[in-house]
Amino acid sequence: MSQYRVLIDANDEKGLVHKVSTVFYKNDLNILTNSEFVDAQNNKFFMRSVVEGDIELNKLHQLISDVMPISANIEVIAPKKKNIIIMATKEMHALGDILIRHEAGELEANILCVISNYNDLESLVSKFNIPFIAISHVGLDREQHEDKILECLDGFEDIDYIVLAKYMRILTSKFTEAYENRIINIHHSFLPAFIGANPYKQAYERGVKIIGATSHFVNNNLDEGPIIAQEVIHVNHAYGWRDMQRSGKDVEKVVLSRALKLALEDRIFVYANKTVIF
Amino acid sequence: MSQYRVLIDANDEKGLVHKVSTVFYKNDLNILTNSEFVDAQNNKFFMRSVVEGDIELNKLHQLISDVMPISANIEVIAPKKKNIIIMATKEMHALGDILIRHEAGELEANILCVISNYNDLESLVSKFNIPFIAISHVGLDREQHEDKILECLDGFEDIDYIVLAKYMRILTSKFTEAYENRIINIHHSFLPAFIGANPYKQAYERGVKIIGATSHFVNNNLDEGPIIAQEVIHVNHAYGWRDMQRSGKDVEKVVLSRALKLALEDRIFVYANKTVIF
Amino acid sequence: MSQYRVLIDANDEKGLVHKVSTVFYKNDLNILTNSEFVDAQNNKFFMRSVVEGDIELNKLHQLISDVMPISANIEVIAPKKKNIIIMATKEMHALGDILIRHEAGELEANILCVISNYNDLESLVSKFNIPFIAISHVGLDREQHEDKILECLDGFEDIDYIVLAKYMRILTSKFTEAYENRIINIHHSFLPAFIGANPYKQAYERGVKIIGATSHFVNNNLDEGPIIAQEVIHVNHAYGWRDMQRSGKDVEKVVLSRALKLALEDRIFVYANKTVIF
Amino acid sequence: MSQYRVLIDANDEKGLVHKVSTVFYKNDLNILTNSEFVDAQNNKFFMRSVVEGDIELNKLHQLISDVMPISANIEVIAPKKKNIIIMATKEMHALGDILIRHEAGELEANILCVISNYNDLESLVSKFNIPFIAISHVGLDREQHEDKILECLDGFEDIDYIVLAKYMRILTSKFTEAYENRIINIHHSFLPAFIGANPYKQAYERGVKIIGATSHFVNNNLDEGPIIAQEVIHVNHAYGWRDMQRSGKDVEKVVLSRALKLALEDRIFVYANKTVIF
Repeated sequence: MSQYRVLIDANDEKGLVHKVSTVFYKNDLNILTNSEFVDAQNNKFFMRSVVEGDIELNKLHQLISDVMPISANIEVIAPKKKNIIIMATKEMHALGDILIRHEAGELEANILCVISNYNDLESLVSKFNIPFIAISHVGLDREQHEDKILECLDGFEDIDYIVLAKYMRILTSKFTEAYENRIINIHHSFLPAFIGANPYKQAYERGVKIIGATSHFVNNNLDEGPIIAQEVIHVNHAYGWRDMQRSGKDVEKVVLSRALKLALEDRIFVYANKTVIF
Repeated sequence: MSQYRVLIDANDEKGLVHKVSTVFYKNDLNILTNSEFVDAQNNKFFMRSVVEGDIELNKLHQLISDVMPISANIEVIAPKKKNIIIMATKEMHALGDILIRHEAGELEANILCVISNYNDLESLVSKFNIPFIAISHVGLDREQHEDKILECLDGFEDIDYIVLAKYMRILTSKFTEAYENRIINIHHSFLPAFIGANPYKQAYERGVKIIGATSHFVNNNLDEGPIIAQEVIHVNHAYGWRDMQRSGKDVEKVVLSRALKLALEDRIFVYANKTVIF
Repeated sequence: MSQYRVLIDANDEKGLVHKVSTVFYKNDLNILTNSEFVDAQNNKFFMRSVVEGDIELNKLHQLISDVMPISANIEVIAPKKKNIIIMATKEMHALGDILIRHEAGELEANILCVISNYNDLESLVSKFNIPFIAISHVGLDREQHEDKILECLDGFEDIDYIVLAKYMRILTSKFTEAYENRIINIHHSFLPAFIGANPYKQAYERGVKIIGATSHFVNNNLDEGPIIAQEVIHVNHAYGWRDMQRSGKDVEKVVLSRALKLALEDRIFVYANKTVIF
Repeated sequence: MSQYRVLIDANDEKGLVHKVSTVFYKNDLNILTNSEFVDAQNNKFFMRSVVEGDIELNKLHQLISDVMPISANIEVIAPKKKNIIIMATKEMHALGDILIRHEAGELEANILCVISNYNDLESLVSKFNIPFIAISHVGLDREQHEDKILECLDGFEDIDYIVLAKYMRILTSKFTEAYENRIINIHHSFLPAFIGANPYKQAYERGVKIIGATSHFVNNNLDEGPIIAQEVIHVNHAYGWRDMQRSGKDVEKVVLSRALKLALEDRIFVYANKTVIF
């Protein structure tokens, strides 16, 4: 008995559910969960099923492809640990949360390595017997620095996701295009956000009563990719901007870990710079 | 073109989605939304589809029945305003919220009347040209009082839901069985709750930092039916029990209106004293 | 025995609490609640005390003034119902929530009248025996229209607060300066917000997972005054922008009523385009 | 210049704020923050001030004692890292969150050691160079086991708090009385809670739509001490009890760390089995 996650998105037309469920039925597959969504405005159909049965992955993929429109994207995935690489700079909270979850066996992921432009986090990462790779940006322009990182990444096979756990440098489109819909960032703000340096300081100056964090894919501009998860906390006049920053960290790590979990469980579709999450 | 909400629950078996979606496909129905859930532990299958097409309601019901197991419950519903009766006692917040939504045209419901065991709310209800019926309990035992209410209810045709908007009397099983899964209550607490009189006072004495409200169907014991919706707010040491009660009202009305909306949109399945909500 | 709310803000210096509490002590006043806050960055001191005792309001004000720095703002307020005027356009939810609270006796306020640039809300307002004044903007430029409203407002004595319950027109600085820190608005977004028309549509396009509302004083630019209260709700991919708008209404009314309550209880200080709320 | 946290609780009477603030003023102390609360029902006064100036701790304590009623509890505390001991059993999430915060320098605490009745967590704790002490309960009755732990604790000087980070054994009153108001527990439920084994299973069976966690002092019965912090998350019908448990862990660690932070900053008063938190 094998278990598969089947993800389909396609231009919507009548009969898609019928056709897929017929494949499942004829091959004696058990549907464990099934979610569908139609975006009428964009005429897009999304479906995620978890099925169980006695069939080869490739065979199932083929059978579904045979009945779906040519334009459809079809993924059939056997659940297994995904390979992730974490990029960070100096802050420990978001990275630490992922490391503990990994250590506790909560994470459906292998952490291949942690890459940073500083050495500060080496001590923490090393405790967990995870390779730490420092790639300093000092003396390099943005592209040179990224090239070194990309080269490093090329040394790994099958990277499923790159997690930016408070990686504080902007990525060029060369980088983001190489890993489209596979780079997960945590942004220390809602979106739309206070633009420019130190959003917590701006939030403080504005006198906001709520602060938040946003996890999203990075496809081009650092803060403008498809949103995966958001969360907030209430603050008040007694919070200076450093207090907001400190409280913000607790939201950031929660939101990033939540987004990562959704990605690892293959629950996210991306389209039109948005996400559908089942 | 007609639109229907199709609700099916059945003992789970392979092919249910296939069979229903085949009916949709063969009859050229467009699936607008589709939700499924399988409770593996109880071996129960739940499905709610909204479909659009050119078919009679009874025909569609028949076609689905033909392919479903005998044990299945099948509902095909043409969206229209449901008939509701509100029961209240003296408090205005939950009732008032529903009246304003009704007045604003937000509610998919006709309010047939408001029944109370006191006259206090007559002035409010009358403003909205909704019949107010006072049925005093004075001098009557519980059963006698309920019989008068039941008699009053019998005067209305097609009551879809009875909404207890802070109706402060316990209903007997004779009453609740007559309207199974159709009486929606708002309880001023989480469940499990502080048992006995004045839960806000008990919450205060216990020094809780969160209070909440629960909306649920009333099928037997007042506070033990299937939960539809819950919500909370944070409180602190500066809240006396009356402050908790006052803040609690804001949660109560929000939760009751949310539960009512779910019911009016035919989104709730009830089984095993729980709800599945799509 | 009288009860007073004492509000003081001043440039911070040593001894302020000592001096005020000495006045309270020497005059045999009982402190019921006492809150202080020092904004070290702006060197500002804020204090709100509720005291009880046998003293004239003017006498207490004089005694406190005698010991405070000249720069201090001192308010001594005997709790009583404030006079408010509500301005709205067509939407019912925020206005309706206030009307029901008023009817239930929950609001420490007299609603002097409701002013709208349309007639749509007259039917609702009239139910509650509250004057409804339609001042159409048709055929008038912004200033002419506002002048008619200002003239109308001049007909009322002692307006404490003007509540913009979804009043959909921008006010000029002439208007806002006439009622500085006394106009309470509800904005259908966080701040910073999606700028321009229909923020819900923009939020939808951006694929946000949280939407919110902000209540704030209107001192100049419509959306940029000191924030009083904010709240959010989670949304998902299944929400079209009209669903977001509908859910947003529930947040809007909650936040506006919360902000109004804070204002009516004299809990808000305004400075540096921010609020301190006790 | 020294900074002190001054905590006073006393039976309420007129002049307490006056008397304390006079001490501050006469000794040229700067008040950084000041919070007061009077519980009128219990006639109790609470005050927490953070002051700055040139004075000895003992001198300040004496001066305040001189003007306060004999019944008053007075604490003058120079902020410094507190000594904590963590007790755990097998689960990693709550312990891990504290370890990461400690490693990041976020925690105003020295972790003296981690004690567990199993060896499972030794590997994690050792990574952080914190002593791990396994004290197995196998073959011992409850009292014998606790005696060994108490003996171990006696080997440490100046334990400020004992943090039960999912320590799954009930403590006797002998233990809890030895560390009154100093043992902080995380309970995987609201209070009132589902009683008995596996509350997540009970929550699942009851069909709740919200689950939560409660951090509290353990003074007698494991789940009935003064509540410090609570938090919740929404769940739905698709959550099995293991999903609830998994999601519950995220709330548990957040709430425990929040409660610990409040304790380390000397923000908690305990009385009448409740807390006042400034």
